Amino acid sequence: VPERNLKLTIAYDGTRFVGWQRQLEGESIQGLLEEALSSIEGGPVTVHGAGRTDAGVHALGQVASAAVTFSHDAQTLLRALNAQLPSEIRVIRLEDVGREFHARFGATRKTYRYLICHDPVIPPFHRAFAWHLPEPLDLVSMQDAARLLIGTHDFGAFRSTGTPVRTTVRTLSDSRFQRYAADLALAPDLSHLAYEITGDGFLRHMVRAIVGTLVDVGRRRRSPDSIALLLENAGRADAGPTAPAHGLFLVRVDYD
Amino acid sequence: VPERNLKLTIAYDGTRFVGWQRQLEGESIQGLLEEALSSIEGGPVTVHGAGRTDAGVHALGQVASAAVTFSHDAQTLLRALNAQLPSEIRVIRLEDVGREFHARFGATRKTYRYLICHDPVIPPFHRAFAWHLPEPLDLVSMQDAARLLIGTHDFGAFRSTGTPVRTTVRTLSDSRFQRYAADLALAPDLSHLAYEITGDGFLRHMVRAIVGTLVDVGRRRRSPDSIALLLENAGRADAGPTAPAHGLFLVRVDYD
Repeated sequence: VPERNLKLTIAYDGTRFVGWQRQLEGESIQGLLEEALSSIEGGPVTVHGAGRTDAGVHALGQVASAAVTFSHDAQTLLRALNAQLPSEIRVIRLEDVGREFHARFGATRKTYRYLICHDPVIPPFHRAFAWHLPEPLDLVSMQDAARLLIGTHDFGAFRSTGTPVRTTVRTLSDSRFQRYAADLALAPDLSHLAYEITGDGFLRHMVRAIVGTLVDVGRRRRSPDSIALLLENAGRADAGPTAPAHGLFLVRVDYD
Repeated sequence: VPERNLKLTIAYDGTRFVGWQRQLEGESIQGLLEEALSSIEGGPVTVHGAGRTDAGVHALGQVASAAVTFSHDAQTLLRALNAQLPSEIRVIRLEDVGREFHARFGATRKTYRYLICHDPVIPPFHRAFAWHLPEPLDLVSMQDAARLLIGTHDFGAFRSTGTPVRTTVRTLSDSRFQRYAADLALAPDLSHLAYEITGDGFLRHMVRAIVGTLVDVGRRRRSPDSIALLLENAGRADAGPTAPAHGLFLVRVDYD
């Protein structure tokens, strides 16, 4: 049977899942996608995701690949998958790609966004999608500190201990904090802060550890310049706390 | 004990509630606010809302009034109420107002918004806040029809039967459909449709009946001009279906 390689772009509200990756207990996005594809295939299908998002982390544009043999056209398949998946998970695009495409190994860049609600009261519509920090934050210092992370550095201080990796060196092409009116439709007067980060790869909990550290800077518990020291021979304990999962979104995955 | 009159502005995600109004069964927004205020008062408190929203309908700026005798300052009280309320309900403003202020009787205008997701796939973040209509819709006809509703008319064709009211004549100062990028933070490429309506008062299910009828126009099941006929001696069966509750938001209540 001729094999066919699918590229899926997926959005999900991660609130109630154990994360992207299949686990022994609990529902995962990978597991539910594999179930849906397997039921169409009539046999097991493995789904490879571009990146593993933790429990509670959301995605606007996660990318996955899967080899299948059925012949449904892309439009029909997209509808069939969404009919079977829970409404928290939507396949937003589905394309046929060459056999050499692999969502994880082929990914050249990923972009994440972290939302902070800086208003005194967090609107009910954002309670599952933003970290609520009503206290004063020094945004200019956070912006200065964020910029220092751009480039090729050792991000060993910003990762969960216990995960073996070949190298903790990563290259960031973007790292910035900005203010913007979030969700014009639902809460017109709201000013959120968004941290956007793009890199060639990310260590486990790296974005959340960076956000926790930048928030320390915003709270004036550390100076913007001190961030540079964390990129040289520093340990996880030297950086700030891990920001909560529910403010984080995997926004986009790029391929060459 | 000297009485004090409070004006509360409230946002809520109506998904899991029986509606604004206290019911024998289930949790209501009014009931939960009364519980929270009563526990501070140490005695029963009645909360008057500007308008009764149905089960599943949301609010960005519902207004309520309540007479109490405790003396906490507004800032402390706001924090205490939000600490006690579930995260789906947030008091976003709290002010001391004159004894003559009554949230319902004093309201001169209310504005509602109805969100329609017109994309092929509804993003998971909007599934509880927009009516998903992926089929083609004639937006220009919907806009033309919406405009015909502005002014003083008999809206008897757009209300739930069985609710006795003195008159079904209401005055709308605004009624329009527009396209816009919803929720820049969560789904940048999204184009929703929003229906905005402002009037001096609304009959039960009136906004949802209007939206259902305007969508009939968008689907070319009725002409834009036919809307005018519904304002003259028409019955509920002559208008379109009632749009689902979860796309509707009470946006703002105005007082003189």
